[in-house]
Amino acid sequence: MPETGRMLDDLLDVVGIGNAIVDIIAPADEAFLRAHGMAKGGMMLVDERKAEEIYGQMASAIIASGGSAANTIAGIASLGGRTAYIGKVRDDEFGRAFRHDITAVGALFRTPPATTGPSTAQCLILVTPDSQRTMNTYLGACANISSDDIDEELIRSAHFTYLEGYLYDDPAAMRAFHSASEIAHAAGRRVALSLSDPFCVERHRGEFLHLVDHHVDVLFGNEAEVTSLFECGWDEAIARLRQLTELAAITRGAAGSVVLSKEGPIEVSPEPVHTIVDTTGAGDLYAAGFLFGLTRGASLRECGRLGSIAAAEIISHYGARPQTALRGLIGQTVSP
Amino acid sequence: MPETGRMLDDLLDVVGIGNAIVDIIAPADEAFLRAHGMAKGGMMLVDERKAEEIYGQMASAIIASGGSAANTIAGIASLGGRTAYIGKVRDDEFGRAFRHDITAVGALFRTPPATTGPSTAQCLILVTPDSQRTMNTYLGACANISSDDIDEELIRSAHFTYLEGYLYDDPAAMRAFHSASEIAHAAGRRVALSLSDPFCVERHRGEFLHLVDHHVDVLFGNEAEVTSLFECGWDEAIARLRQLTELAAITRGAAGSVVLSKEGPIEVSPEPVHTIVDTTGAGDLYAAGFLFGLTRGASLRECGRLGSIAAAEIISHYGARPQTALRGLIGQTVSP
Repeated sequence: MPETGRMLDDLLDVVGIGNAIVDIIAPADEAFLRAHGMAKGGMMLVDERKAEEIYGQMASAIIASGGSAANTIAGIASLGGRTAYIGKVRDDEFGRAFRHDITAVGALFRTPPATTGPSTAQCLILVTPDSQRTMNTYLGACANISSDDIDEELIRSAHFTYLEGYLYDDPAAMRAFHSASEIAHAAGRRVALSLSDPFCVERHRGEFLHLVDHHVDVLFGNEAEVTSLFECGWDEAIARLRQLTELAAITRGAAGSVVLSKEGPIEVSPEPVHTIVDTTGAGDLYAAGFLFGLTRGASLRECGRLGSIAAAEIISHYGARPQTALRGLIGQTVSP
Repeated sequence: MPETGRMLDDLLDVVGIGNAIVDIIAPADEAFLRAHGMAKGGMMLVDERKAEEIYGQMASAIIASGGSAANTIAGIASLGGRTAYIGKVRDDEFGRAFRHDITAVGALFRTPPATTGPSTAQCLILVTPDSQRTMNTYLGACANISSDDIDEELIRSAHFTYLEGYLYDDPAAMRAFHSASEIAHAAGRRVALSLSDPFCVERHRGEFLHLVDHHVDVLFGNEAEVTSLFECGWDEAIARLRQLTELAAITRGAAGSVVLSKEGPIEVSPEPVHTIVDTTGAGDLYAAGFLFGLTRGASLRECGRLGSIAAAEIISHYGARPQTALRGLIGQTVSP
């Protein structure tokens, strides 16, 4: 097994498990989305042929490592947290770029790449003039994740295991999800889940409701995801969440976020952003800031504030990985 | 020969010839440059092994098509000009991304990719906190450009042939440069040259002086490049340029630019930029706006203004290709 990043010589704050994806990001107009039947703001799964067809019609693009949980892990590392990532790439150019980027920010990434089979996963992201992103994912090598890749040592050693809902889109990845969650709880650790996307919630609503009720200690999502989960309006969704979850942090775009716990709801303001360029990764980086705060014993309000700061950095440029060391943005309130 | 982009059914405004490169861009501090012996602001040539060594130590990066002349051609196309590009990639993932990006913006690119030999060229770009970029280029497949790639039909049909000085860094590319320049002049077309980089000027000073004196109709450069070319200070360099060249446009960073012609020097102010993020491509995009203006019969002052507008867009984000259609930024003064 290739050993990249630093050795596991102390406790980890968070280990993330997700689909290891490289993003290909370009501007597009609303007509482009309509012409391709894309649901704005969502993530659609596409096969390799369809991915090539969409790419062939996209504008000049930039390429950057992505993947929801990977973005969160990169964000926590950028804040100064000790992190690891588990996910499957192929041993191709994009796979090497993914490995470079997550280890460069300081995360441990020792999942071996696939040496045969489909190429590293790609997400074709269209950014409309309103800065909203619409995603088309070819899962490629992600489908090759196996139980051998679920690194028990990493999971047992991490305070939090962070799982993305997108893992449910592939049977092998879903098995990896369950296996990781069981290992974490057996070791007395906490499990955090991102609901990922309202369409993902729709595809797996029953399973997600069961997970949230029985297996998740910290839940992340946005307004569209939680209203889709419970098939109801915002107020009722909040009430249901308070019954089912110990701790949930729900983002509401420009309206900030709401943290739900036994203490009652806490409303968190968004951080000001001069120009919103691309909202890709906003939820992922909010989760990064929030989880980092939890691992540092910050108050829930402070956790929400850290999430807002990390999200504000990510939406100010193309791509879902920080272009600035986030620890420089959070001030002295939380020690690295 | 693969036919990509639109057909050559009418005159072209500009054909560009250059090293076809994919940029890998990451933030770095001054200590990183010192540790690797990099000359800040310049471009160093590196071999594949050295490129891998530098990449292995770089921060999380974004990948975007680059190449000096290719950036200029993409900029002219984004302004609404009719363009073509000649340059050599390999048939690998980065080569496909390069081809996608330049054809997506509307340029004709029909140079066949190499099917053997080194991989597509890469430029490892370090962006320091002052937004200055320092470049390390592995030329890879660029060395495989041959006289067969110098597409006479394109060059004869273009009002301007735009050549980058960097072509002198490889013998095959230098021969392509000369061949293209001869074809253009034989067809009664004009030749524009970018001096590229002060270190490039130093490597080829004698040849560049000869070129500027005898073979170049429009010269682009910056203050460091022209003072290196003549090995003197700014005022004397300007005087020498006025003797040697018919038309020159010289950028001075935050001080704007100076256009030199028989009309006398014209000082052009820079466009205001809210936050300068990455100066990669500033000179390339200035040349794009300026050349686009020339092809539209704009005044030299207006050409300089168009250059400043295009440069201002490119330095507001990572990467040297426009993230916005430039024709939307230039108002109604010049018709596409």
